[in-house]
Amino acid sequence: MSVAVASVKKLINEPADVVKESLVGLGLAHPDLVRIDFENQLVLRKDAPVSGKVALISGGGSGHEPLHGGFVGAGMLDAACPGEVFTSPVPDQMLAATKAVDGGAGVIHIVKNYTGDVMNFKLAAEMAEDDGISVESVLTNDDVAVEDSTWTAGRRGTGVTVLLEKIAGAKAEAGGSLAEVAAVARRVNEKGRSFGVALTSCATPAAGTPTFDIGADEMEFGVGIHGEPGRRREKIRPAAEIVEEMADAILGDLQPAKGANVLAFVNGLGGTPLIELYLVYAELAKQLEKYGVTATRSLVGDYITSLDMAGVSITLLELDDELTALWDAPVHTPALRWGI
Amino acid sequence: MSVAVASVKKLINEPADVVKESLVGLGLAHPDLVRIDFENQLVLRKDAPVSGKVALISGGGSGHEPLHGGFVGAGMLDAACPGEVFTSPVPDQMLAATKAVDGGAGVIHIVKNYTGDVMNFKLAAEMAEDDGISVESVLTNDDVAVEDSTWTAGRRGTGVTVLLEKIAGAKAEAGGSLAEVAAVARRVNEKGRSFGVALTSCATPAAGTPTFDIGADEMEFGVGIHGEPGRRREKIRPAAEIVEEMADAILGDLQPAKGANVLAFVNGLGGTPLIELYLVYAELAKQLEKYGVTATRSLVGDYITSLDMAGVSITLLELDDELTALWDAPVHTPALRWGI
Repeated sequence: MSVAVASVKKLINEPADVVKESLVGLGLAHPDLVRIDFENQLVLRKDAPVSGKVALISGGGSGHEPLHGGFVGAGMLDAACPGEVFTSPVPDQMLAATKAVDGGAGVIHIVKNYTGDVMNFKLAAEMAEDDGISVESVLTNDDVAVEDSTWTAGRRGTGVTVLLEKIAGAKAEAGGSLAEVAAVARRVNEKGRSFGVALTSCATPAAGTPTFDIGADEMEFGVGIHGEPGRRREKIRPAAEIVEEMADAILGDLQPAKGANVLAFVNGLGGTPLIELYLVYAELAKQLEKYGVTATRSLVGDYITSLDMAGVSITLLELDDELTALWDAPVHTPALRWGI
Repeated sequence: MSVAVASVKKLINEPADVVKESLVGLGLAHPDLVRIDFENQLVLRKDAPVSGKVALISGGGSGHEPLHGGFVGAGMLDAACPGEVFTSPVPDQMLAATKAVDGGAGVIHIVKNYTGDVMNFKLAAEMAEDDGISVESVLTNDDVAVEDSTWTAGRRGTGVTVLLEKIAGAKAEAGGSLAEVAAVARRVNEKGRSFGVALTSCATPAAGTPTFDIGADEMEFGVGIHGEPGRRREKIRPAAEIVEEMADAILGDLQPAKGANVLAFVNGLGGTPLIELYLVYAELAKQLEKYGVTATRSLVGDYITSLDMAGVSITLLELDDELTALWDAPVHTPALRWGI
């Protein structure tokens, strides 16, 4: 007996055209910030390459918007390579991005820890080096939920990627060398930890149906940004209990210094409204107090999503003076902007 | 026979505490911008009252975040009065806000056209005048979908409210008089039109189940921001067709000047991911071209939502030089920020 699975409605045309058509919109909405290279499927900073500046590129499967294309612009990324939905971009695409943005000071590849992305960025970096471009690859693997996952060896790269792109982008904008920008970027990954929970599945445009089944009263505790399994499936609980366990997982692993300052990032996965995200922030603040940690910076909203998944991830980044100053530095991208 | 309706999962504690707990989070995440008056349930600009500046307040039922509390800060609102979810704030709350922000130059009440809001703001304005505070009320009624609705006589006030709060806020920040700020605000409402569609219902925390039933292959064409019925229920169609009809409805009513410049605002209703909003923007751009209209400014994201509803609204605002300059002026609120 077959069970009918309800299709998930989307504001799209042909499923195969979603990524390209969304990029058209991104380019048209922000012509002052970005240009789209449709041949290579790239989002490029309008004025790239910036001569003498270390360039930053990132990329990965689409479906996590605004990551990464929404973070292209002054003070953040020079280019993003969007793959098809939940599918790694290809090495040629990454190579084209690297060449397009290299201003002579080298290029940073920011790579979330998914096997496809890691392999393809590695090939692209080798090809770029063959072409005489210096490349430093920086891996993010901040998700403490699980070791190894559907598409990952080790920990998955999630929310810290957003913070790293902002902070390393500021270091490059300030004239940092390739080694200096890479060092700051790696420090962000070392000092950042994340944990996510899902209340519903996402549905890719191609499938049109939920990626995984989940009961009407269940949550996935420790979900990945493509719907990968987390630590366990369980009954949904009050936000206070959920956030307490998320914070314990993150802070138990991060082990911040007593009295540490952190950037507290409460991220919506795409289908959760802002009223809930701020409620989660309030619960997180209680937990931080318990640990003697102070959130001196915050970010609340949808920044690294899983299409239409309802859920939230929390990322904590232990700050020092330099990371704080780089976070505060001006940025002008479609999705993050201040000081400009 | 009773039919079981699946409850909608939310990241909350007690449903009755959602608004208050979310306000706690808003205040803690943005202590540099806002302070929360829990006694009167107000979001206040940190440095209110600003002496000599015309003050702007707005308010309405919660569930539309970031509207209005996320728009409190320099260059936008001086206070927001959040009611319970989808429930008007009360006159005493609005009066308390008016008194708290009056800097001696008068106060603008920005009122979305819903019967409860209109009535309560009217009473609050009368009480404030009795206390010697000059108040100008500005109504938004930009939704061209339907005349009269579940909670509205005339047209509903929707997306233009966001643009009006930004633009009138800039006029006040620049030293505009009460009459001048009110005049600019009314011009924004006159020159703005909106239209929304829903793919799914929202679910309030108190009910815990969808506000309205909608088929797995249906959309509500012309939906209101609380799930009020639109023009018709119909089968979902490709985004290109949906956006064409939305643009026709808006532009047919607005009748912009040939060659007009507009601000094109593609707004997510809470459950629709950004990848779809940018795709909608691309379709909208095609329609604007057809009408000989140019989008010289854009806003794409979730700014006036309906809890977790999947869907989108489009707002077009015909710009002139003053409105453009006021839009571009610096703003620093939790949800909109640039130039600061």
